[in-house]
Amino acid sequence: MKIICDKVDLLNGVNTVLKAVPTRTTLPILECILLDAHSDELKLISNDLELGIESKVKSDILQKGQIALNAKIFSDIVKKLPSSKIEITVDDNFKTTIVCEKSKFNIPGQSGDEFLKLPKIEKNNYVKISQLELKEMIHQTIFSIAMEETRPVLTGELIEINNKEFNIVSVDGHRVSIRKSVMDIPFDKNVVVPGKTLSEISKILSSEEDDVLVYFADKHILFELENSIVVSRLLEGDFPKYEQIFSKDYETKIEIDRKDFLDSIDRASLISKDGKKTPIKVNIEDDNLIITSNTEIGQAHEEVSILKEGKDLEIAFNPKFLMDALRVIEDEKISIQFTNSLSPCIINQINGEDYKYLVLPIRISS
Amino acid sequence: MKIICDKVDLLNGVNTVLKAVPTRTTLPILECILLDAHSDELKLISNDLELGIESKVKSDILQKGQIALNAKIFSDIVKKLPSSKIEITVDDNFKTTIVCEKSKFNIPGQSGDEFLKLPKIEKNNYVKISQLELKEMIHQTIFSIAMEETRPVLTGELIEINNKEFNIVSVDGHRVSIRKSVMDIPFDKNVVVPGKTLSEISKILSSEEDDVLVYFADKHILFELENSIVVSRLLEGDFPKYEQIFSKDYETKIEIDRKDFLDSIDRASLISKDGKKTPIKVNIEDDNLIITSNTEIGQAHEEVSILKEGKDLEIAFNPKFLMDALRVIEDEKISIQFTNSLSPCIINQINGEDYKYLVLPIRISS
Repeated sequence: MKIICDKVDLLNGVNTVLKAVPTRTTLPILECILLDAHSDELKLISNDLELGIESKVKSDILQKGQIALNAKIFSDIVKKLPSSKIEITVDDNFKTTIVCEKSKFNIPGQSGDEFLKLPKIEKNNYVKISQLELKEMIHQTIFSIAMEETRPVLTGELIEINNKEFNIVSVDGHRVSIRKSVMDIPFDKNVVVPGKTLSEISKILSSEEDDVLVYFADKHILFELENSIVVSRLLEGDFPKYEQIFSKDYETKIEIDRKDFLDSIDRASLISKDGKKTPIKVNIEDDNLIITSNTEIGQAHEEVSILKEGKDLEIAFNPKFLMDALRVIEDEKISIQFTNSLSPCIINQINGEDYKYLVLPIRISS
Repeated sequence: MKIICDKVDLLNGVNTVLKAVPTRTTLPILECILLDAHSDELKLISNDLELGIESKVKSDILQKGQIALNAKIFSDIVKKLPSSKIEITVDDNFKTTIVCEKSKFNIPGQSGDEFLKLPKIEKNNYVKISQLELKEMIHQTIFSIAMEETRPVLTGELIEINNKEFNIVSVDGHRVSIRKSVMDIPFDKNVVVPGKTLSEISKILSSEEDDVLVYFADKHILFELENSIVVSRLLEGDFPKYEQIFSKDYETKIEIDRKDFLDSIDRASLISKDGKKTPIKVNIEDDNLIITSNTEIGQAHEEVSILKEGKDLEIAFNPKFLMDALRVIEDEKISIQFTNSLSPCIINQINGEDYKYLVLPIRISS
């Protein structure tokens, strides 16, 4: 194999596929990037068996072939080479020579035949969505996937496509995040995508208005971008029915400045020995929301102005669970509805219905 | 005690004194910041017994007094308060109330009497130097202090003032960094200042043209800035005589582009199993400097153009020891002189004599 490409193009490709190289594995071949120059372009491929990424790099293919190179060493070298033409040559013993200006590296490679190919996906069923929007949807929901593996399906996010509605939902047993968007063309599909896949793809998605094509197969999902494809296994299992707990009924409803509320909770949670674990108490009294926290470290007392509808209320929360959502909402003011001190509260947008967040309170002795 | 001050001023002061709060200590009072409002201004004081910092904060002193507050909790609160007026009140039981807009914190304090006062320094002997220049001098030398405590004096830097010459020197057994500057007024003093002190003071020094006054006492050094003073113990012991090893004689002398040389060493050192520990080989041949590295990971070969005077040479180095110096030099081109493959090499500026660096080679079997 012999190819020539630009350092900048190669580095972009390498940085993309690195996201699916496992940091620790018992299968050494997975720590490699496959350089596949069988056709008239160079493809870089990585595969951690759950997630696989393929990225095209504009290259002159002088001699076809393929090679698997240790991802860490190869990427370290590419990063540090000058911004110039890079020539990569592989001999019959898989010895790989990388030349760029006055730099020359020899590293041993492994036969590309040993590399585990990405699953083949039939490209029949797909939807099209803006990369920027998908990136935002993931950002606004990924934090409330479950960390524990006790119910694997909760470590992923539900992608729920119903006619022209495209929703992403995450549920971790304490809270639910929902982000909705609207597509041009109707489709129907419900799949659960691993959190790691969504977290990695959101780093690859561009912040511009380009689209991404999302293909669905029986056990896989495939994201197609301009120069890259990302293939992931889907999670199996029944995703919780979340709609019914989003009740429209409430006893108390407030309108509050999002940033003021976030900052106040953030400060009150400083008074907590072990980070953010101690509950904070929230008292809704007329046009005031009072946050208090009381531990052996001291006491905090915070007030935020509100518009209130309904009853006064005392309720307690894990401060982190409120802050996580308040950080990803972009609206200046939000609406929050409560039933009583033991029932979930729901954060809504005041203008719009794209984002909803439900969180369970913590029972406290008063 | 009762004081009112601006959040921004208080935060500046807190951030400054935090640098002398030890992260772990057996003496809990050292984990505190002392707020001293005995005079007509607020002083914040921290002291880790080697290094002490005092910082003035513009305040209205409504009731004089002092209090020692846990540095972590107090600084976390101040950081997160709104940018507004902060009122701090201490009652007879050292309970401290911090109020800012609609936020109120109560935290327990300790009697200021328990706090270990900073040593009193007679302000007789001092020199004046630009803060920016001192910051740069520390930056260009601090990396070659010794890490091990086997010879404590080498964990500090020599400040050597000889007439109008002000030099900072560090020596770690493998290399020597020297940075010189010139003062307006003659003085004479040789002291060894702990590396930690210099590293912390360099973070406080401003990048503008303000001066810092440096006072010398028997066992202490004191740096006086506009709003802060930093006091440190000096290190005892004989600092090595370093001048004699900076020989003017050489067998080989080269002129080389600093950045090209740095980048080439950086790349060649990638071929090393355990970070930067494997020596790189340097061959000087006519108008080429060739860097090679050869380990089980692979081989690197780098070439850099040079202007050479004297003999060809083969020599080997710890790549980190060369890169450390090449990173802090600002000149585009540098000169390097060698005697033979077992003797130190010396990096010099081509224009100027402010900075000198000496490094020992590593003996290799050829």
